[in-house]
Amino acid sequence: MNTTLGTPVRTVHYGLGPIGLAALRSVAARSQATVAGGVDIRDDLQGRDVGELAGIGPCGVSVTRTLSEAGTPGSADVVVHCAGSHLDRVTDEILEALAWGASVVSTCEELAYPWYHHPDQARRIDEAAHATGRTVLGTGINPGFAMDALALCLSSVSERVDRVHIRRVVDAASRRGPLQVKVGAGISPDEFEVRRRAGTIGHVGLVESVAMIAAGLGWQLNSIGETLEPVLASKPIRTDVVTVDPGSVAGIRQIATGSARGHEVIRLHLEMYVGADDPGDVTTLDGVPTIRSSSTGFHGDICTAAIAANAVAAIPRLRPGLLTALDLLPVRATL
Amino acid sequence: MNTTLGTPVRTVHYGLGPIGLAALRSVAARSQATVAGGVDIRDDLQGRDVGELAGIGPCGVSVTRTLSEAGTPGSADVVVHCAGSHLDRVTDEILEALAWGASVVSTCEELAYPWYHHPDQARRIDEAAHATGRTVLGTGINPGFAMDALALCLSSVSERVDRVHIRRVVDAASRRGPLQVKVGAGISPDEFEVRRRAGTIGHVGLVESVAMIAAGLGWQLNSIGETLEPVLASKPIRTDVVTVDPGSVAGIRQIATGSARGHEVIRLHLEMYVGADDPGDVTTLDGVPTIRSSSTGFHGDICTAAIAANAVAAIPRLRPGLLTALDLLPVRATL
Repeated sequence: MNTTLGTPVRTVHYGLGPIGLAALRSVAARSQATVAGGVDIRDDLQGRDVGELAGIGPCGVSVTRTLSEAGTPGSADVVVHCAGSHLDRVTDEILEALAWGASVVSTCEELAYPWYHHPDQARRIDEAAHATGRTVLGTGINPGFAMDALALCLSSVSERVDRVHIRRVVDAASRRGPLQVKVGAGISPDEFEVRRRAGTIGHVGLVESVAMIAAGLGWQLNSIGETLEPVLASKPIRTDVVTVDPGSVAGIRQIATGSARGHEVIRLHLEMYVGADDPGDVTTLDGVPTIRSSSTGFHGDICTAAIAANAVAAIPRLRPGLLTALDLLPVRATL
Repeated sequence: MNTTLGTPVRTVHYGLGPIGLAALRSVAARSQATVAGGVDIRDDLQGRDVGELAGIGPCGVSVTRTLSEAGTPGSADVVVHCAGSHLDRVTDEILEALAWGASVVSTCEELAYPWYHHPDQARRIDEAAHATGRTVLGTGINPGFAMDALALCLSSVSERVDRVHIRRVVDAASRRGPLQVKVGAGISPDEFEVRRRAGTIGHVGLVESVAMIAAGLGWQLNSIGETLEPVLASKPIRTDVVTVDPGSVAGIRQIATGSARGHEVIRLHLEMYVGADDPGDVTTLDGVPTIRSSSTGFHGDICTAAIAANAVAAIPRLRPGLLTALDLLPVRATL
């Protein structure tokens, strides 16, 4: 039985943007964890109480610029890292946290399954984690659950899976302002195309989800593809932060696929736009039996913060190394 | 990465009834496992080829009466045990398999979460498993997934869970004959009442699911309750094995609840009857956020055999001891 509660896990929160503060609130709400530090490079945050920043009242812990200013090595158990989507930008921060003696729970999207697209960085982090006896876990709602891990969990009762199809529709208007901006709400189709070519628009992590599903089911993919196009508004949409005219961009439609032996075996269809009619998640495993699961409630910000906080509590029970959701689901459909 | 395939796991199948043979077929279909033996006490099965019994053609392995006749200790890695719903009847068989040197994957319903209702037997099995360095895993679709583990998996993205409500409706006509008989299809309401009082009708494992959910969410329950009543046919129903007249029993409606601090916090509603209109599974986690997941495809026989076979492949990666689905889901909603 793993229900016995031990000493609370001490966390330092690295990156105090909207998701970082949400994760901090989520950790602070749990008896199994206690907030021991907050790290951010922004000048205007230095010395401020992290609890006040998070809107939960003072907690006697001040923001510092670095981990070493937050405390001596060993003064925290887990660094909750919410400071970037791309591994190129965060690998050094994760290695720094390990060197400082902590395990890491990170919402970095590319860390949700880095073994396919970033094997070198994954190996470096894995080796450093083993060398320090600590755990690094990439997590989040998407990638990390809604469009990958949930399908693998469902596959545990599959006699055979032939194809995985997941469709996630998010009403961006229900999300924070930066997310609405991130999906291009309110810009012109031309501007969307400029940003698409520059790689500054779209969801990070969809191809990682394809790779995780394939690895989890033991499938060798020939190729992983991805497309990104705008969803255009057919009527005026007004949210708390943007106004979208008809014909302007309401958000994104992003599709990632994985093929094996010439057949598309994984298709992840993600729409995130303001005014989405029917938000929700539908996971279909074609096979024996065909399993179809339709879910509502997987709110991007709330659930990413929550799974990070829930993962913090699980860290003492996990093995050392770089782990992903895949490693937390040992029973999956097998070949 | 756990995707590397190692040496196939060698299985002995203990109990060759419908579920045992389905699990054997499922194991035989996987490259990660290989069938090494079949054990059953029935005289008419002795010496017969297990593959022929399972309908997949001869596989060169004959039924024996005991494990020791099936091979020397160490000649198999996992005993796939499908020989009873109640721990009282199967504990000795599981201890025997451990003493014989194998791990055990069992579909015994009460083993899906024995720590609450059968703590002494759970402890005996756990100690024996630790002593031999082997793993015992209780598994199945229900209990083991549809009405417990899936909810715990979903809770990993929950900021807070206040109440769990799961409704499973099974069309017994889609299941094998013994299941239709087990739910009382075709008997009179009076006969149902006689069997209900004798404890010879109804689903085994629902209260185990309640206990697993509570343990997984860290909830201390004051009480677990269960009710069982017949679902009566409103029109004639004819299946391949029974004919049900209007007014006769079509199947069961079984409800188990768990209460904490005077409030019902878990409600598991199971209906299994012939002619069920809208079969499927609905899992609701009231909380932040409220998550609702509606699934189809969790076929009792197919999925129980499948999860047992998928668990066999996972055994080499699991720690020693008595494990349940709870132990395979380290990240859950935490308090």
